[in-house]
Amino acid sequence: MAAEYVSLRNIKFLLHDVHGVSDLAQFPYYSEYDDESIDMIVDTIKELADTYFFPYLEECDRHGVTYENGTVKVHPQVLQVMKNLGENGWIGAAYSADVGGMQLPHMVAILLEYMFAAANNNLNGYPGLTAGAAGLVISFASDELKKTYVEKMLSGRWQGTMALTEPHAGSSLSDITTTASPNDDGSYQIKGTKTFISSGDYEGIENVVHLTLAKIEGAPAGVKGISLFVVPKKRPTANGKLEPNGVVTAGIFHKLGQKGYVTTQLSMGDDDDCRGWLVGKPHYGLAYMFQMMNASRISVGCNAAGIVSAAYHASLEYARDRIQGRRLNNKDLTVPQTEIINHPDIRRMLFMQKSISEGALSLVLQCTRYEDLHHVTDGEEKENNWLLLELLTPLVKTFPADVGMQAVSNGLQVLGGSGFCDDYPLEQYYRDIRIMSIYEGTTGIQSLDLLGRKMQIKEGKAFKLFLGEVQKTIGEAMAIADLQKHAEQLKSAVEKLVGVAKHLGKIAATGDIELSLADATLYQQMFSLVAVAWQWLKQGIAAHGALKHQSKAEDDLKFYQSKIQTLHYYYVYELPEIDRLAQTMTSGERLTVQGDMDLLV
Amino acid sequence: MAAEYVSLRNIKFLLHDVHGVSDLAQFPYYSEYDDESIDMIVDTIKELADTYFFPYLEECDRHGVTYENGTVKVHPQVLQVMKNLGENGWIGAAYSADVGGMQLPHMVAILLEYMFAAANNNLNGYPGLTAGAAGLVISFASDELKKTYVEKMLSGRWQGTMALTEPHAGSSLSDITTTASPNDDGSYQIKGTKTFISSGDYEGIENVVHLTLAKIEGAPAGVKGISLFVVPKKRPTANGKLEPNGVVTAGIFHKLGQKGYVTTQLSMGDDDDCRGWLVGKPHYGLAYMFQMMNASRISVGCNAAGIVSAAYHASLEYARDRIQGRRLNNKDLTVPQTEIINHPDIRRMLFMQKSISEGALSLVLQCTRYEDLHHVTDGEEKENNWLLLELLTPLVKTFPADVGMQAVSNGLQVLGGSGFCDDYPLEQYYRDIRIMSIYEGTTGIQSLDLLGRKMQIKEGKAFKLFLGEVQKTIGEAMAIADLQKHAEQLKSAVEKLVGVAKHLGKIAATGDIELSLADATLYQQMFSLVAVAWQWLKQGIAAHGALKHQSKAEDDLKFYQSKIQTLHYYYVYELPEIDRLAQTMTSGERLTVQGDMDLLV
Repeated sequence: MAAEYVSLRNIKFLLHDVHGVSDLAQFPYYSEYDDESIDMIVDTIKELADTYFFPYLEECDRHGVTYENGTVKVHPQVLQVMKNLGENGWIGAAYSADVGGMQLPHMVAILLEYMFAAANNNLNGYPGLTAGAAGLVISFASDELKKTYVEKMLSGRWQGTMALTEPHAGSSLSDITTTASPNDDGSYQIKGTKTFISSGDYEGIENVVHLTLAKIEGAPAGVKGISLFVVPKKRPTANGKLEPNGVVTAGIFHKLGQKGYVTTQLSMGDDDDCRGWLVGKPHYGLAYMFQMMNASRISVGCNAAGIVSAAYHASLEYARDRIQGRRLNNKDLTVPQTEIINHPDIRRMLFMQKSISEGALSLVLQCTRYEDLHHVTDGEEKENNWLLLELLTPLVKTFPADVGMQAVSNGLQVLGGSGFCDDYPLEQYYRDIRIMSIYEGTTGIQSLDLLGRKMQIKEGKAFKLFLGEVQKTIGEAMAIADLQKHAEQLKSAVEKLVGVAKHLGKIAATGDIELSLADATLYQQMFSLVAVAWQWLKQGIAAHGALKHQSKAEDDLKFYQSKIQTLHYYYVYELPEIDRLAQTMTSGERLTVQGDMDLLV
Repeated sequence: MAAEYVSLRNIKFLLHDVHGVSDLAQFPYYSEYDDESIDMIVDTIKELADTYFFPYLEECDRHGVTYENGTVKVHPQVLQVMKNLGENGWIGAAYSADVGGMQLPHMVAILLEYMFAAANNNLNGYPGLTAGAAGLVISFASDELKKTYVEKMLSGRWQGTMALTEPHAGSSLSDITTTASPNDDGSYQIKGTKTFISSGDYEGIENVVHLTLAKIEGAPAGVKGISLFVVPKKRPTANGKLEPNGVVTAGIFHKLGQKGYVTTQLSMGDDDDCRGWLVGKPHYGLAYMFQMMNASRISVGCNAAGIVSAAYHASLEYARDRIQGRRLNNKDLTVPQTEIINHPDIRRMLFMQKSISEGALSLVLQCTRYEDLHHVTDGEEKENNWLLLELLTPLVKTFPADVGMQAVSNGLQVLGGSGFCDDYPLEQYYRDIRIMSIYEGTTGIQSLDLLGRKMQIKEGKAFKLFLGEVQKTIGEAMAIADLQKHAEQLKSAVEKLVGVAKHLGKIAATGDIELSLADATLYQQMFSLVAVAWQWLKQGIAAHGALKHQSKAEDDLKFYQSKIQTLHYYYVYELPEIDRLAQTMTSGERLTVQGDMDLLV
């Protein structure tokens, strides 16, 4: 097992120096959170991760989930995590004080996900999903439902889930067929099958609360006929007891990774006695669910960023220790072998990981900053923050997952044959991170969301706002001699991004939507690379500022110089990829739309 | 389980139409092999793969290797494979008739590896390594050793291995410390630890023969002091029995993939009674071993290509069957959902897989064609074929492994959540292929071999020969109107490849070898992309020729058109990557050489 999985130094640098978290304290809602109290919380989160998560990483994988005679068993640490985080208020940390939350800025609350995922991504989904599901009840449900569910969930006694996918309807939610028929008592009879339900059931937890999408009889077709229900595994009775509610775990999935995180298939109402309680208004279910889906998308990206960090630290540690070969300018056999960190190819793989890991986390914090500002501002400012968050959500979900996967693969490669063996954690990280490109809408779906929806809302206002934000950063960097070159590179990259958008816009204007969106994934890749380049330039500016004005303690100097070095790496090795993507997208190729698929033999 | 894992149609097209395998029949050594007999052999290999390999893919993974009380147990099918292939002459298929082989061209013999790996890559290493180890005895050992070992190995009764790596000496073979001290009877006393030894031991096999690198007492330092020994697990006695030979299996590795293929750690001579027999001359061991290492490198690339093929076919099958969502130009909910193969993003992922799968196999056959021609030609022609093979070996090893890994990842992604679960084979392919970038010299090592050694031999003669070969193909393609554009693209790509080589050559000329080789992996990636582009242009030429002259049966038309379509995909979506690589390599960046590694925090 590696010694470290995140850098607290980096987290605090991003929070304070790059993303100015304490700005938020000027707003009454967040007024309790100054630099000092935030650092205390960050340190506490790390301690929680050290204590409740990291020591169980391997165990959760090796002694994963079992299913026998309808009973799901998970590692006992799942219950410990739910209990401890719940009792100490961490599950509801991001919610307002009036529902028992800590009113923590999202920028800080997301670090719970980040550090827990970095420490042990097999465990953090249980409290994470519970928080998200409770959030739907808090935001949209009746007071009665709130009273019944919220405290039980935020205290970790009841697990929460999101139950969307059905065997024939995954990416295509408009085609779900789970039904809801009104009962006399105001509840609904739920009937249907839900699949790939994370945290869906396990022995030892009091109850599981499924925030479930279903269609009320006679509802309109498609997404406009979807409603949201609370469907508990056990329903509370009038006398305060719990009784079975017709939710049966039909099976669990045997997975490549996250073997300690249960994924279930649920049958609801096979016995015609599964009751659900409507959340909010009928037919608004998908709109409500988007609150949780959007949060989950950021969370998935954040989980991926956490795994990338852990893999980076584990491979860095190995590269510093492992002695093998000699430097290429001195192959003298009488000279002892050297640590492999001295080989350029190993360094390249470490730099790549570091640049992706820290770039991704910075993008996560950027998104949650918009989320926080949206929460506390009004009028156009509020809308602008919302639009920026909406635009970046598909990027923050996919980049850490997709490019993160390659980063983890580089981490494994640093270890050579040992990376392929379970004596080191890299092979587990490699398996675990693979789901992140699939969870909560695959990369393909996210990319369509970006190009087909987010780029279009309010006639491209979100995109224009983004360009303005990046322009601000470029302007600041232009004033710093050492960063001018990179500022110009980013300027040119943004121009290319705009150019491709215009090119695709012209195709869309002809009415051939399919053709205009055919390379959406490539556009998302290009956009992500630019967005992360922006984050690195921001980090460069902050590091330069710190080198100029702050302490010259050796550790500080090293830290800030490492930021500039890694910024440099990203701009030379990673960003140029956008040229390839632009070249393909503007080639006029129609193969993936018009090619004959019978020819795929 | 998927229905198919390779395309026989594609294999025969590549063998006959692209690589003209029957040309070889003009040489007496291969005179038995005309088109017809080769097709019969190809069909037979497929039947062997269908019968002995494919049905056990999942089982070998799920019920992998165990080690208890010093005994290694593997899936019983391992013994069946060794017995059947051995008894029917397939293990020695590539060797000459005088040692009991079939004298099969390497172009055909490699298809044993290819189809077996595509069918079940957990099993084919056992006979594959046995063949390679026997080949060392055939090529370099004394008649007595040949008599003792060759027939036993080629008949599948004795397993063969290559025992190079030691715990402190993996990539750096010059640092091995296993010793060999002469005994009075001409044998040597062997002492040392060998690790990561594939096929190293298992219950039920009569004997295991380790082709072992060790240093004779007083040998020169480094690779010039390495000798090659036959070190059997059980040594043959004068009366024809077998007795223990001091080789102890200290443990096995628990791996991410290839869980049915045993990887052992061996202690030799802990009891001071482990005898080895010198192969050839003292201190020439590494030179001899390179015969097996070179073959193994092609074989690893071929294994990777096989897995990529299997993953492609499995995901294609899923994409044709799975119904989900509607086409983007028609989201009418009253229209039934469509097969996901109709979504552009899915098509892109399928095309990517197909272009990598078939491009990689074509490169494998190109290499083995040079191997065959080297075998039967003389003088400069022989040397030229050898140089071309040497140059392409690091590419054929890395491209199918590295880019193949991404292809398999795309295959998994096509299946969405199902790709992450073990109900489908994609997650296994994803795990299994990961080792191919590590086996037989990591990607980093191969890339140094390419740029630091192969590009330099005979003052760049190999590279010049390669450029000549590609020029020939470009010339042919220029004469075909439909291919002119791609011919020009390849011409430009080759110019860029030469340009970067010159740039790096200038750095090398300053004496800073480390800096000139720092981006060797990027150069290898660029070279690989160009080499595969060349293979696709060759396929395009062959397909065009066939469309013009051959049968117009619908199946044939479809097949040839699919080749042209995929060629097109590769040139638009994959080849442009070289620009990014060239940009980084010529940036003047020195970060991975001169960057301060203390800063990696």
